[in-house]
Amino acid sequence: MDGRTQALTYVREHREAFLAKLAEFLRIPSISTLEEHARDVEEAAHWVADYLRSLGMEDVQVYPTEGHPVVYGAYTAAGEGAATILVYGHYDVQPADPKELWTSPPFEATVRGDYLYARGATDMKGQIMAALAAVEAAVHSGGLPVNIKFLIEGEEETGSASLPGFIRHHKDMLSADVSLNPDAGMLAPDLPTITYALRGLAYFEIRVYGPKQDLHSGVFGGVVHNPAQALAELIAGMHDARGRVTLPGFYDKVRPLDEEERAELARLPQDERFYLEHTGVPKLWGEPEYTPVERATARPTLEVNGLLSGFTGRGSKTVIPRQAMAKISMRLVPDQTPEEVHRQLLRYLETHAPETIRWEVEAMTGALPAMVDRNSPWVQAMAQGLHAAWGTRPLFKREGGTIPVVAFLKELLNMDSVLTGFALPDDNMHAPNERLHLPTWYKGMEALVHFLYNLSE
Amino acid sequence: MDGRTQALTYVREHREAFLAKLAEFLRIPSISTLEEHARDVEEAAHWVADYLRSLGMEDVQVYPTEGHPVVYGAYTAAGEGAATILVYGHYDVQPADPKELWTSPPFEATVRGDYLYARGATDMKGQIMAALAAVEAAVHSGGLPVNIKFLIEGEEETGSASLPGFIRHHKDMLSADVSLNPDAGMLAPDLPTITYALRGLAYFEIRVYGPKQDLHSGVFGGVVHNPAQALAELIAGMHDARGRVTLPGFYDKVRPLDEEERAELARLPQDERFYLEHTGVPKLWGEPEYTPVERATARPTLEVNGLLSGFTGRGSKTVIPRQAMAKISMRLVPDQTPEEVHRQLLRYLETHAPETIRWEVEAMTGALPAMVDRNSPWVQAMAQGLHAAWGTRPLFKREGGTIPVVAFLKELLNMDSVLTGFALPDDNMHAPNERLHLPTWYKGMEALVHFLYNLSE
Repeated sequence: MDGRTQALTYVREHREAFLAKLAEFLRIPSISTLEEHARDVEEAAHWVADYLRSLGMEDVQVYPTEGHPVVYGAYTAAGEGAATILVYGHYDVQPADPKELWTSPPFEATVRGDYLYARGATDMKGQIMAALAAVEAAVHSGGLPVNIKFLIEGEEETGSASLPGFIRHHKDMLSADVSLNPDAGMLAPDLPTITYALRGLAYFEIRVYGPKQDLHSGVFGGVVHNPAQALAELIAGMHDARGRVTLPGFYDKVRPLDEEERAELARLPQDERFYLEHTGVPKLWGEPEYTPVERATARPTLEVNGLLSGFTGRGSKTVIPRQAMAKISMRLVPDQTPEEVHRQLLRYLETHAPETIRWEVEAMTGALPAMVDRNSPWVQAMAQGLHAAWGTRPLFKREGGTIPVVAFLKELLNMDSVLTGFALPDDNMHAPNERLHLPTWYKGMEALVHFLYNLSE
Repeated sequence: MDGRTQALTYVREHREAFLAKLAEFLRIPSISTLEEHARDVEEAAHWVADYLRSLGMEDVQVYPTEGHPVVYGAYTAAGEGAATILVYGHYDVQPADPKELWTSPPFEATVRGDYLYARGATDMKGQIMAALAAVEAAVHSGGLPVNIKFLIEGEEETGSASLPGFIRHHKDMLSADVSLNPDAGMLAPDLPTITYALRGLAYFEIRVYGPKQDLHSGVFGGVVHNPAQALAELIAGMHDARGRVTLPGFYDKVRPLDEEERAELARLPQDERFYLEHTGVPKLWGEPEYTPVERATARPTLEVNGLLSGFTGRGSKTVIPRQAMAKISMRLVPDQTPEEVHRQLLRYLETHAPETIRWEVEAMTGALPAMVDRNSPWVQAMAQGLHAAWGTRPLFKREGGTIPVVAFLKELLNMDSVLTGFALPDDNMHAPNERLHLPTWYKGMEALVHFLYNLSE
């Protein structure tokens, strides 16, 4: 019996044991947002570290940070010739409020039917446990075929504030060929999914200034360019009639979608009706030459996130406001960068802002877009693993949002991430009665076993 | 000696007495905005009523309202063949804060140099006193040559809330040929001024609705029309590149400016530099075929008074807002009406709002524009009066704002108003050290005497 077959047998035979271990992990209310749970968060970190030690991992350590600790452990016995995978995860969970809406207590993992109910069951202690199960199975089946490093943080639910600093200070320790991030989920129990791209972000505040103070619109209406109007004119000009962004050079670095990728994206169950239902808008909008899912995930966008000017209370006040503000952000796709988009925005304003007003732009947060080659060995190893476990070819999707850790790893370590996971859309993440679909979870363990062995072939 | 000459002599010889009477009036702190001064406001009303009675006026009465009282009194002995003038005024004043910035106490009228310092000296107890002085002079010089009615309210500084109801309930009592409103001021001590037109107002709130809830801009950016963007596009389209309002039919009822009127307006000391200095904008804006003063007073405008959508706090939030709101108001000139402009706005939105969003418009306040014929006997009587007193032809100006009482009288009694007055731009109205320029005030009394006698010729 080869290692792969042994390991697959191991995860099948130890399902009860892994479920019991997960239940133990879930009993720790490691709520990172609530200060009174700081000790629980710490306990969860040590629970992970102990598990890693039990697998014979090296250099296992609970690293304190300014926030909650980061757990690290490595298995390098596969040697320098073998691939090295950095498994990312987070051991912290969301608060359980409102507790009265839970059918069983949030921190007493309870099986009902095919589901295990508990806070963190799917987001993401169950996902971490699946990865640990696959690694344990390989360890007990002749040793891991690849090198593995675990990077498990405790601040994901509060914004991963300490993670960039941690990565920056431990670049060598964290070096790996690729990151596996099982926090991305799948679209349905029969639709294993790989997320191969994320959009980046560039966020700005634009301020337009007119008169030195608010003016009486009766006395001065007609002689000054109203800053709110000028801002509206500038915003209106940022898209053309076909929904394309008009910032100069905005699309220059955008990788075109080839037919093969469009065919993959067309397999996703996110058609026009899906978006109409989920948004409630009377009619969809956007570049007509792209499908809705392409527009929402594979195309860059520019959105107004906020507008503020003048009098906004009840009633009427006849003021010409002295200034107007807009929050504007762009979702970026490879190979756009926040810095370039910033320059494009400035050029747009330099060209289009009239001499009748003054303006300024403040650059707020930014994140690089991320994409891993679908034909890379890493993605193919995972795709074949999912295929083997489910008996069906996985879907390849792009994510329209930004996952900070993926951007950090790309920016600080130039490391791509393979995003997958076994969470389902109806798992009640961040809500009462969070749950984990056990048949999916067990298949996920097998897929991860395949992934590890596929990487060594 | 004819009545006019006698009356002119009377006001000259009684300057000290009128100044003493005004000082008495100014000692009453009739601050309408402060509840603790309600008794003072009442006292000021009775002071005015007593004065009217001392002049032999009929039907003098202090009418209670839901707010502060209205004082009325009439002189009808000139007979049915004579003209009837309704003199409008307000006996209430602004608060005196911050009191420490006053050189002399705000409610102890103090003469320093050419000025009388006190709260209400120029706005507008001094103006009321000038009208009373002219009437008193005529009464003591053979009787008034015209019929006079006084309508003196106590809520002007709080928005004249009770006045429309009062007018509506006393239409017959208040009937007159024209109203004299000495609350409009003049542009400089050597520039007597008649205001012959006011702009009206139509104020709206526009709300644009998109998705059923705020959306994550990463997940849905690219498939829905951002309501803030859609609103910006609609606002941007409300003006063309030359600053003209694009609402359908907006200019249809606008009376053109003829060359004679443009020549009059060109005499006003409000040139481009004036508007640049008073607004602080880097460059003026507006219809290039009109001068700044024409644009600010004789042309209709559309202004954004407020904008609100999405996230407007510090930092960044990547939201596609579910709605966006704009306060939009138009300044109207004859013969536009708020109702017509409302219909034009609705037609604009029906034509230009895209199917990707929903919208609604709420009509808030509205006021008719007002204009009195510069060649009417009323305006000419005042113009000649000012000319006689100052030795210089008065300026004719239009006011860009709305004066509620003028709109009420037009709407409820179809009565025009002759707007003038002897307040100067540097009289510190509504500010500490409010003052009245006595040489101007004395000339004003004489101008009003001339006005009364001019009306009977």
